[in-house]
Amino acid sequence: MSELIPRIDLNSDLGEGFGRWPLGDDDALLSVVTSANVACGFHAGDPTIMRRTCETAVERGVAIGAQIGYRDLAGFGRRFIEMPPRELADDVLYQIGALDAFARAAGGRVGYVKPHGALYNAIVRHEEQAGAVVAAVLAYDPGLPVLGLPGSAWLRRAEQAGLTAVTECFADRAYTPEGTLVPRDRPGALVHDPDTVAERCVRMARGEPIEDVDGAPLVVRGESICLHGDSPNAVATARRVRAALEAAGVDLASFTATRP
Amino acid sequence: MSELIPRIDLNSDLGEGFGRWPLGDDDALLSVVTSANVACGFHAGDPTIMRRTCETAVERGVAIGAQIGYRDLAGFGRRFIEMPPRELADDVLYQIGALDAFARAAGGRVGYVKPHGALYNAIVRHEEQAGAVVAAVLAYDPGLPVLGLPGSAWLRRAEQAGLTAVTECFADRAYTPEGTLVPRDRPGALVHDPDTVAERCVRMARGEPIEDVDGAPLVVRGESICLHGDSPNAVATARRVRAALEAAGVDLASFTATRP
Amino acid sequence: MSELIPRIDLNSDLGEGFGRWPLGDDDALLSVVTSANVACGFHAGDPTIMRRTCETAVERGVAIGAQIGYRDLAGFGRRFIEMPPRELADDVLYQIGALDAFARAAGGRVGYVKPHGALYNAIVRHEEQAGAVVAAVLAYDPGLPVLGLPGSAWLRRAEQAGLTAVTECFADRAYTPEGTLVPRDRPGALVHDPDTVAERCVRMARGEPIEDVDGAPLVVRGESICLHGDSPNAVATARRVRAALEAAGVDLASFTATRP
Amino acid sequence: MSELIPRIDLNSDLGEGFGRWPLGDDDALLSVVTSANVACGFHAGDPTIMRRTCETAVERGVAIGAQIGYRDLAGFGRRFIEMPPRELADDVLYQIGALDAFARAAGGRVGYVKPHGALYNAIVRHEEQAGAVVAAVLAYDPGLPVLGLPGSAWLRRAEQAGLTAVTECFADRAYTPEGTLVPRDRPGALVHDPDTVAERCVRMARGEPIEDVDGAPLVVRGESICLHGDSPNAVATARRVRAALEAAGVDLASFTATRP
Repeated sequence: MSELIPRIDLNSDLGEGFGRWPLGDDDALLSVVTSANVACGFHAGDPTIMRRTCETAVERGVAIGAQIGYRDLAGFGRRFIEMPPRELADDVLYQIGALDAFARAAGGRVGYVKPHGALYNAIVRHEEQAGAVVAAVLAYDPGLPVLGLPGSAWLRRAEQAGLTAVTECFADRAYTPEGTLVPRDRPGALVHDPDTVAERCVRMARGEPIEDVDGAPLVVRGESICLHGDSPNAVATARRVRAALEAAGVDLASFTATRP
Repeated sequence: MSELIPRIDLNSDLGEGFGRWPLGDDDALLSVVTSANVACGFHAGDPTIMRRTCETAVERGVAIGAQIGYRDLAGFGRRFIEMPPRELADDVLYQIGALDAFARAAGGRVGYVKPHGALYNAIVRHEEQAGAVVAAVLAYDPGLPVLGLPGSAWLRRAEQAGLTAVTECFADRAYTPEGTLVPRDRPGALVHDPDTVAERCVRMARGEPIEDVDGAPLVVRGESICLHGDSPNAVATARRVRAALEAAGVDLASFTATRP
Repeated sequence: MSELIPRIDLNSDLGEGFGRWPLGDDDALLSVVTSANVACGFHAGDPTIMRRTCETAVERGVAIGAQIGYRDLAGFGRRFIEMPPRELADDVLYQIGALDAFARAAGGRVGYVKPHGALYNAIVRHEEQAGAVVAAVLAYDPGLPVLGLPGSAWLRRAEQAGLTAVTECFADRAYTPEGTLVPRDRPGALVHDPDTVAERCVRMARGEPIEDVDGAPLVVRGESICLHGDSPNAVATARRVRAALEAAGVDLASFTATRP
Repeated sequence: MSELIPRIDLNSDLGEGFGRWPLGDDDALLSVVTSANVACGFHAGDPTIMRRTCETAVERGVAIGAQIGYRDLAGFGRRFIEMPPRELADDVLYQIGALDAFARAAGGRVGYVKPHGALYNAIVRHEEQAGAVVAAVLAYDPGLPVLGLPGSAWLRRAEQAGLTAVTECFADRAYTPEGTLVPRDRPGALVHDPDTVAERCVRMARGEPIEDVDGAPLVVRGESICLHGDSPNAVATARRVRAALEAAGVDLASFTATRP
């Protein structure tokens, strides 16, 4: 990878419907992103949705990630569950294996792991649960990269265990001067304007500073930009982002692409 | 395999607890059988039970089979569900992939597939559902043998699709003169005496006739004998069967053992 | 009820989301219908959705019906399950009780019972399952009316057991000359034009003939007209129907309204 | 109730199986206890088990309590779930309503509410969740007593809301000098000897001091004694307790019995 051509991955949560209930426009987003975080059936997703999402992802050259979560369909995985780490590791391993069956049947494979919802948030600091998810990835395939928040216990423990830790950033979320996310319930936490989001993506991909929540310049680094798929204008924003990145000469590619 | 040394596989349903609820004495049976049909979480089994069962199976050299079933925890997979074949295939593929994650993490692999309960019964004749399960196995690994009832649509379609079809017989069930099982609700359908069950196993393994329900000689062929694990004296009967087979010089080995 | 003023009930399936996944525009439909078939959590609906739907229904004077179904979230209750009648009766009683808690907390009560999806279809002819659902209603409250298809085993057995059987008809479905529904997969099975649907509703309410699938006049009787809530133009059609009925001087009222 | 005749209630968790999986000897315990905490299907229990448990309870004059819990079959309700209080209240109301359908069909009614597992523990201190459970009981029936730990947020808030708060104590658990339970993982936390448990019950019922974990006298007050139903010798201990209480002239009666 040349230093001269900036490169970025775009990831989004996909395959999050269940049975009769669709969620988001998976087909449209699979034409925009380079990495699909596919729900594995514990908090969202069902086997038929998983198969279809994997088939389309493989067709379009989109990397497939295991979007693992708590066993909590009723809460969409957004409720923290205090559970024994060993049981959590088992739940995660189950989900990765199930998704990989569909990824392989479609001619691909699970290329990375990204926790969802309350689990994502919990393992920023919850050492035991972070360790449990790391253990599950190791048990499945020590070559599998993991995606998450810079500075999280999750990524730190993954690296310590020899896994490849990939950082992500958020173009539609405001950052504090310290480089952490402004909590969602604070004013100005979300960036809604598609053009602004797209411009921030280009800056992030180039390593240029964006404006933090106070308007000061801040360099936010990440190997992947997370695009939210379930907001009303998610598809339009995602397309705007992709167009802006392409116009800026940024190479759009999954972080799994350069791995053997 | 020499013709002179008879050989048989013993399979049993294992890992059928869920969460707080254990079922059967898995540990004891894993010292007797050569093939473990491990429940995959849709009708029984949970990730932690799956992991433990796979670990013990690998330790003891017992082959691991995917005991796949309908998504029906409340009914233990014993209720027929009329569902689209494509959805059934997806459900089956999901279950095989999930179990294989634990089998591989334990140093083994899923070595065969055996349907459970109402699905087992349905695909004796239900062509669409039989085809769906075959399609799922093919999608996962065309080298995976499948286990079932001789004469079933399931085994016929599996063979037609190029899968290895392995037949099983039942030492604790009475057979009609035509070689089919006497329905469970008929008098004399079940053979309770452990010594009789053990003797029938030896005869089955040697290809010698047993007595059918009318007392006439009947040769029942099968590459595997199914031992039920959830009856009150299941472990004692299973041990009696193994001892009798060993005393008779029968080679006890999984049907997966001779495959590369 | 005077013969001179025609009267009809409009029922629709509501509260059919689950957790993160909404379905249909419940709020809009609750301003149109007179009876809300509220899903009870087994095939759709969750406690929070049930509460909200009951609260709005009571506010607007809409009758609350228990939309009971098979335990099948993944299949939305659209897959037939062959289960022991006694277990089905227990599942139904559970659902009615759960919904009634929300109906009563909102100041109302469950006013009738209508089966959903595959259960609705099954008990047109499946005598044992029809009997099981009737038994559950009787066990809960013998004064509770039941809603269903004219000529079904469900309504016949309900009447035989002393329950009040209420018939429904479908303005957006074609009828055969014999007065049965044209199966959904046949050409012309569905009536899409909102004006035609509305006109058929007025004729049904007045006891006047509609056109059958062959164009011949057919009198379709029903005390309630079922409006489907999950089609793309469901709300617009429902509003058109209500406006047409009001313009025609039809009294719109729940069939539960005249009961003490 | 005379001061001269001591009176106590014995409660136990019952109906905690699910589908194919039984748990504990409900039938035997229903001949010993005066109050049955019946699981409602979210962490344990299914509609058929609920019906049978209610039928037997009514036959034997045992009070029926709603053993409500988190929606967590896989974890048996023993894992804390951080969820919005409003959703928790809805989940609890759902469970009470469902159980009451079976209680009433059997000729009884839900007579009280007792939280289970992680929810029981959480609402000792978790004010929001305690308030949510209280709100659910109030919404169902403000006349319903609630059962729990003395000094808990749960009982305090219940009393503040006008509910009748009933305290329970544990004869098979050691108490600290301050009157709180010794945590289960500490040495001496559990009292195993049936005779000692029975003797402690008699003392508790009479208001006499038992020995705390240090051997000093401690008066533990409670209107109900909780007997654990899932230990290996649960039935034998329960029978021993009942015999000792009867021999000591203690009046065994549900705390719901004196209510109109």
